[in-house]
Amino acid sequence: MKAPELILYTDSSPNGFKITIALEELGLPYTLKHVQIDRGEHRQAGFLTLNPYGRIPVLVDEGAGITLFESAAILMYLAEKAGRLLPGDSASRWSAITWLMFHASSMGPLLGQRVHYELFETPAIDTVTKRFRRLTEVAFATLDTRLEHNEWLAGSEYSIADIATFGWMHIVRIVAFDFSHYRHLSDWYERVNQRPAVQRGIRLPQPATGP
Amino acid sequence: MKAPELILYTDSSPNGFKITIALEELGLPYTLKHVQIDRGEHRQAGFLTLNPYGRIPVLVDEGAGITLFESAAILMYLAEKAGRLLPGDSASRWSAITWLMFHASSMGPLLGQRVHYELFETPAIDTVTKRFRRLTEVAFATLDTRLEHNEWLAGSEYSIADIATFGWMHIVRIVAFDFSHYRHLSDWYERVNQRPAVQRGIRLPQPATGP
Repeated sequence: MKAPELILYTDSSPNGFKITIALEELGLPYTLKHVQIDRGEHRQAGFLTLNPYGRIPVLVDEGAGITLFESAAILMYLAEKAGRLLPGDSASRWSAITWLMFHASSMGPLLGQRVHYELFETPAIDTVTKRFRRLTEVAFATLDTRLEHNEWLAGSEYSIADIATFGWMHIVRIVAFDFSHYRHLSDWYERVNQRPAVQRGIRLPQPATGP
Repeated sequence: MKAPELILYTDSSPNGFKITIALEELGLPYTLKHVQIDRGEHRQAGFLTLNPYGRIPVLVDEGAGITLFESAAILMYLAEKAGRLLPGDSASRWSAITWLMFHASSMGPLLGQRVHYELFETPAIDTVTKRFRRLTEVAFATLDTRLEHNEWLAGSEYSIADIATFGWMHIVRIVAFDFSHYRHLSDWYERVNQRPAVQRGIRLPQPATGP
């Protein structure tokens, strides 16, 4: 039996879940390699040859001879490879990519800093915690406005923009940052969360836990 | 005379320069609209209909009926529209997109925080300044390693990954964060900086100044 051509190096994290969800949605066969960050496996020489920045996820497409890192790049690659999870019409496709980039450049990095300063920095630094809380609230409000009249971030089609955003919102819920007052964002969260592929994806390589 | 179909809303900033450079490289006709952030013009209702997040740059392609925000999305759109600034072969193209995403998700947001905490936060918070300095140094080192054996970030072709990265490195030099000890990154900076289109792009809508 031929081995699957796709190899995903990942751990249970917001950026990792984006790719396990996408692979489960697409039904593409893949081999999952668990890179255990808490054991420092992302700093080992073998992994650094795949991603010199030492972060998961990394996707290797052996058949195509392509190695990718950065979750947004991997999501675009998988959507293009499968011809799914990006809308076909140009305006909706670029809307999906715009919201994917909003997540990748603005919302994700700010949530990363909020998690660090609100949950892990000791002693806590009140002004910094408050600043990242305020900045992530602006991102939540922006998404909430977008989702008021759109079922999905790209418009009428579920896409990699939803998957990327959900990867982080899943962790936001686990660490109990409250976003229930953003009604449209909360409703969207439930729509994504009830998808069977999403439920499989957020358990790979294992379910996330709180701080 | 028909007006150009592309309208760029921008200000003199790292993310803005990425798009003026790309448009100058591609030689596409466009109308530049100066959104003066220091006057709060990015918070006005008209601008918020273009980008509900209230950030520059925004690109409107009137002919295509497409409005885009997030500089990485705009760069990919322009490269696809013009059929330039992204390599044609698949491995190099995805390498360009990977490094574009590294910039958009990791390097750019970290530099944004470093600029804030090192130059603008008063009183300074030593632990936070040091943390973002350390994290940006890791990003610089990653780029330096990548550029040791590659003329450009995607490999042998200049691409939107170089343009995005340069947009921020130009500001890094203006605010005098030293990166001269990263020899390959410094050499690459000079290669990009001497391109005529880059020199035009970093003066639009007006040259940047230090803090």
